[in-house]
Amino acid sequence: MSKPAGLVSATIVCLAVSVLFSPLRAPAADAVPAGGPLLSPIFGLPVPDGYREWPLVAVSHRTDNKDELRAILANPAAYKALHGGAIPLPDGSILAKLAWKREPMTEFEGAFRPGVAPRIEFMYKDSKKFPATGGWGFARFVEGKPADEATHKSCFPCHEAKVKDRDFVFTRFAP
Amino acid sequence: MSKPAGLVSATIVCLAVSVLFSPLRAPAADAVPAGGPLLSPIFGLPVPDGYREWPLVAVSHRTDNKDELRAILANPAAYKALHGGAIPLPDGSILAKLAWKREPMTEFEGAFRPGVAPRIEFMYKDSKKFPATGGWGFARFVEGKPADEATHKSCFPCHEAKVKDRDFVFTRFAP
Repeated sequence: MSKPAGLVSATIVCLAVSVLFSPLRAPAADAVPAGGPLLSPIFGLPVPDGYREWPLVAVSHRTDNKDELRAILANPAAYKALHGGAIPLPDGSILAKLAWKREPMTEFEGAFRPGVAPRIEFMYKDSKKFPATGGWGFARFVEGKPADEATHKSCFPCHEAKVKDRDFVFTRFAP
Repeated sequence: MSKPAGLVSATIVCLAVSVLFSPLRAPAADAVPAGGPLLSPIFGLPVPDGYREWPLVAVSHRTDNKDELRAILANPAAYKALHGGAIPLPDGSILAKLAWKREPMTEFEGAFRPGVAPRIEFMYKDSKKFPATGGWGFARFVEGKPADEATHKSCFPCHEAKVKDRDFVFTRFAP
């Protein structure tokens, strides 16, 4: 028995709406806004496509001025280099640092899970484009928008002071 | 100018040796030992191929009887389901739980990094094969070898008691 035309139209509209609002769509941070991607000041770098599915290099926990769990992901070029302990990383490498407030896991006393994500950050290796900052360009986004210029000026001096001998990268591969 | 035959042979041998011993090969935990893969007791499950490159679902921190940072990775079927909040997870889903002792990051006071990895664990969804344990099979490996039967008997009761309503999975997707 064929459906009446109205029911067919309603079904199509419902399908369209569920595709548009499906939780399987890329998270907002991945979306490129109208008018082109938002870029970090100084370095001019966007949120890289597909970063959330990149493999994990390592996790970390910062406790000094914040209580955050982190995950450092890497695009294939960077992952291959860090997995093999090969530094400096090749041009084209990108690292992503995801951070979340540490919050109690209600289902398991003494365990903590990711809470609010205050920012996402990226390091892009391009030795020709960024010679003054060890070949790295930096990008921090807060709620999908690039952080300000002062913030971006503060990235390299810390990496330079602490991990210059490891191509300015804190994270080591965690087997 | 063509190379002498001896030099060409030597180059081929060097290339072959460097491929064989490249640090970019899969880590030891991925390797299948002679005689076939090692299997978990009760459930008969191996370390799945390529799990270390699976995408990240979330991180966690356990503090009750151990101080460990964890990362939960998922194969494509499980990642898609958890990313979309779709439970129960489909058959074929596999989750990997990596754990590391939390150790101070010497380069950055107040930050912690992954230390020794005391074990790796997996959950395999196969509702036909594992009907008595919510459709999940469990596998824990310590230094590349399966943990004992008593350990494997303890997995499901805890998942059942605490997260039965979430298809027995503690971890939620961390955006």
